[in-house]
Amino acid sequence: MAEPVDLAAVLSQIEAPWKPQTVAVLNDYDLRVVKVHGEFSQHSHPETDEAFLVLRGSMTIRLDADDVALAAGQLHVVPRGVQHQPVSIESAEVLLIEPSATVNTGDSPSEFTIDPSRR
Amino acid sequence: MAEPVDLAAVLSQIEAPWKPQTVAVLNDYDLRVVKVHGEFSQHSHPETDEAFLVLRGSMTIRLDADDVALAAGQLHVVPRGVQHQPVSIESAEVLLIEPSATVNTGDSPSEFTIDPSRR
Repeated sequence: MAEPVDLAAVLSQIEAPWKPQTVAVLNDYDLRVVKVHGEFSQHSHPETDEAFLVLRGSMTIRLDADDVALAAGQLHVVPRGVQHQPVSIESAEVLLIEPSATVNTGDSPSEFTIDPSRR
Repeated sequence: MAEPVDLAAVLSQIEAPWKPQTVAVLNDYDLRVVKVHGEFSQHSHPETDEAFLVLRGSMTIRLDADDVALAAGQLHVVPRGVQHQPVSIESAEVLLIEPSATVNTGDSPSEFTIDPSRR
């Protein structure tokens, strides 16, 4: 019997927020889990959409035009080029789905930037 | 405040197993929820990997070499070209991630086949 990826088990090994960890690769896309807590930097991804699925807790994705509040089991896809700022007061555990080349801070490098080629 | 996609709410509107419903589009990929119950037909997708994330219940993906048992919160990516047969005795609710053009029965048309271009 092969072992599946247990998302909660991987997340339990992650201490710091805003440090996505790739748990599986699907063609040229990554599935990444991340803990979110506090305010991330505002940015956009000019080249790709980005999916957020909240696994535990709650978060808000602040958008130019509107905000999206996400609880566990809720999903939102930020379209390419749309400025967004992930925020979580309570903290949340999130599954991200995006092309493997995607940099977390997109077009706006900040103290949160992690280069996926160096992970 | 924009509305997120609530996966359980969409699934509560689905009665029949093996009828994936697209809940979001990420570039040229679909995020689809599906109820699984019983045995699906064995097939492979020669052109793409396919991700299964169990949201509720449990299922097994029967593979040539091995089986993968998945409970809620567990994920497995079936590599392209690998024969697989999804099975669930108890029933499960699952998130599928795959290119939008992916046909559910891949290279092996069966009574379960749904052409995504006709959904």
